[in-house]
Amino acid sequence: MLNETMYAYGVEPSVIREIFTYANERKAQIGADKVFDFSLGNPSVPAPSAVAASIERSLAELSPAELHGYTPAPGLPAARRAVADSLNRRFGCSYTASNVFMTVGAAASVSCTLHAVACPGDEVIVIAPYFPEYRVWIETAGAACIEVPADPETFQVDAAAVARALTPATAAVIIDSPNNPTGAVYTRTNLEALARVLEAENERRRAADPAAQPVVLISDEPYREITYGAEVPWVPGLYPHTVVCYSYSKSLSLPGERVGWVLVPDTMPGSTRVMAAVAGAARALGFVCAPALFQRVVADCVDEPSDVAAYARNRDMLTRALDEYGYTYVKPDGAFYLWVRALESDANAFCERARALELLPVPSDSFGVGGWVRVGYCVAPEVIERSLPAWRQLAEGYRR
Amino acid sequence: MLNETMYAYGVEPSVIREIFTYANERKAQIGADKVFDFSLGNPSVPAPSAVAASIERSLAELSPAELHGYTPAPGLPAARRAVADSLNRRFGCSYTASNVFMTVGAAASVSCTLHAVACPGDEVIVIAPYFPEYRVWIETAGAACIEVPADPETFQVDAAAVARALTPATAAVIIDSPNNPTGAVYTRTNLEALARVLEAENERRRAADPAAQPVVLISDEPYREITYGAEVPWVPGLYPHTVVCYSYSKSLSLPGERVGWVLVPDTMPGSTRVMAAVAGAARALGFVCAPALFQRVVADCVDEPSDVAAYARNRDMLTRALDEYGYTYVKPDGAFYLWVRALESDANAFCERARALELLPVPSDSFGVGGWVRVGYCVAPEVIERSLPAWRQLAEGYRR
Repeated sequence: MLNETMYAYGVEPSVIREIFTYANERKAQIGADKVFDFSLGNPSVPAPSAVAASIERSLAELSPAELHGYTPAPGLPAARRAVADSLNRRFGCSYTASNVFMTVGAAASVSCTLHAVACPGDEVIVIAPYFPEYRVWIETAGAACIEVPADPETFQVDAAAVARALTPATAAVIIDSPNNPTGAVYTRTNLEALARVLEAENERRRAADPAAQPVVLISDEPYREITYGAEVPWVPGLYPHTVVCYSYSKSLSLPGERVGWVLVPDTMPGSTRVMAAVAGAARALGFVCAPALFQRVVADCVDEPSDVAAYARNRDMLTRALDEYGYTYVKPDGAFYLWVRALESDANAFCERARALELLPVPSDSFGVGGWVRVGYCVAPEVIERSLPAWRQLAEGYRR
Repeated sequence: MLNETMYAYGVEPSVIREIFTYANERKAQIGADKVFDFSLGNPSVPAPSAVAASIERSLAELSPAELHGYTPAPGLPAARRAVADSLNRRFGCSYTASNVFMTVGAAASVSCTLHAVACPGDEVIVIAPYFPEYRVWIETAGAACIEVPADPETFQVDAAAVARALTPATAAVIIDSPNNPTGAVYTRTNLEALARVLEAENERRRAADPAAQPVVLISDEPYREITYGAEVPWVPGLYPHTVVCYSYSKSLSLPGERVGWVLVPDTMPGSTRVMAAVAGAARALGFVCAPALFQRVVADCVDEPSDVAAYARNRDMLTRALDEYGYTYVKPDGAFYLWVRALESDANAFCERARALELLPVPSDSFGVGGWVRVGYCVAPEVIERSLPAWRQLAEGYRR
């Protein structure tokens, strides 16, 4: 009857959303310019003007029935082709529309992929700190969420730790680079080490059973385009059993419109079966198709550049100040989060002292580790600028 | 590892989609005007012009960050309020925004509601013939799909048959009025009989265990506005444990844009817990929010009338002709489907003979019953007009 698991997911406090709500209440009390909300990953950079132009063109050129009708479940052929062509140009691959399944955003991409490649009782490895919804989606697919800590200094994948965590029940490993919450970008060398570990596991499995399934690497890449010079290697080129999950929430600043894709490369053995299972999962969970109008936006805007310079300016302003005040943090190579070491071991206690100064970062505990905070700098630059005295005062308070 | 259940859902032929694909191939071969495709429920009536006006206004008045940003998970307050106000005006209720959860279309509404109110091992009753995806969503929520035949003459709910099918494991009953595939609209008397049966079951449960959960009635209403004079009673007014699932796919002709809602009336005992479970299910399945731009369209267009007259003209043209040719069918009071008795007991064989004349209805077997076909008349009137000689010839072939 009432499903207590779903009820718990519904009432379980999302720490990020709670802080966001508190920020809005507090802004109403004391004025929006006096509250420094670093909680959400809602891009402050607007969608490129090409998005509005694409919508206008669709409205002008298509009949409403064409425009708003059901698309095929895997997506509009034009959108799927545009995505494949863009990837081919950028990464020297030879994908076709049939490798691309348009989704209702990255959450749908990861949720459908997990349902497709994992079964009840399987295990799925995440690299801690990790995006908290991974656990929810993994458990909803009936699998167990296995946390493997990242390298504690660089926040790269600790391939040796992954090797120790692999079991015959490991269906998949999820990586997320550029990383939310740390801003780390996994290097080619690091990903090669991870690929070797997974290949060794696959060989062990095949030795025991020639029909054994390989470990699937789920590369969740909503921040692929938000980088500050670092290379973001194309993961299927390093490990064949890779499914890529993508979203236009960050690159085109369309988080509310829910459009993204799953790529199952045909270089993956058994790719047709995996793609069919992704399609089956999308159907079974109630995703009929990705929103039609925004599939057309994707077809038109797939190569629109993100305004990364705006995030880079924010990052530089924030890190220069935090350097001066004596904070330590992971130098972010991508995404728009700064992973800052709390000035005491309890990140929640640190966040309470920050809150007294109207500073609202997210404590690291919700990402599966203690002692850090996530500072989302995808905000207006004035927010960062005005927050600097509070960051200074917070640090000074710990020196007294 | 590879999830064979999801794989099967991915490759399992959707009969409706197969016919649609065949129709398109056949049109390419012999000309679009010579093929009569009655397979899909893609509305031929265009979205009202107010939809384009709403989109234009949003583009003109809102900053892109506001326009395309994440909405709260339950939806934009303005959209939720507009839905509640509209229902209050039409059905004399007193709902608020908190009773409405915006969804990614009716499929998401039903899928999330099933996950919220059913647990693995529970049973969910459907009234056959029924929309085939109900079985997929029920089974994905871990429950068993229990088919109860509708009244074989009127296709109203057979309340006595529902009574016989109820067990202590029955979590929910799904109804769909105006009905897909039969076009029947359940009368007030019929729904009252169903409510009495469910109340009696609830009383039995409470007698055994005062904390027992009632049977939830899921009223899936994408066709509520598509009626030809029949009253579509407001189901929560007849049975308090009703969750209403809705979509703008049909009423605003926006099937590809994926926007709808779940209503949990606060007149339902325990409604807060049920709504939390719906929210938890939406989160757990990977629905982050309903598409933001189309939530604004809903807020603006919630009371836009559907062009029912166009469907009524199609219905009249088709039924007058089928009367003349000697077919029997269920007189449709709503939706845009005609449920026609096949002229032999095997609906698939009948559809093969129809296909030889380029007529493409859907055999009833995919809806859980034999011996009928579904004729979707949400097509251009010319398609119906041109198809009439073929319908005549098909009937004559059976008289020889």
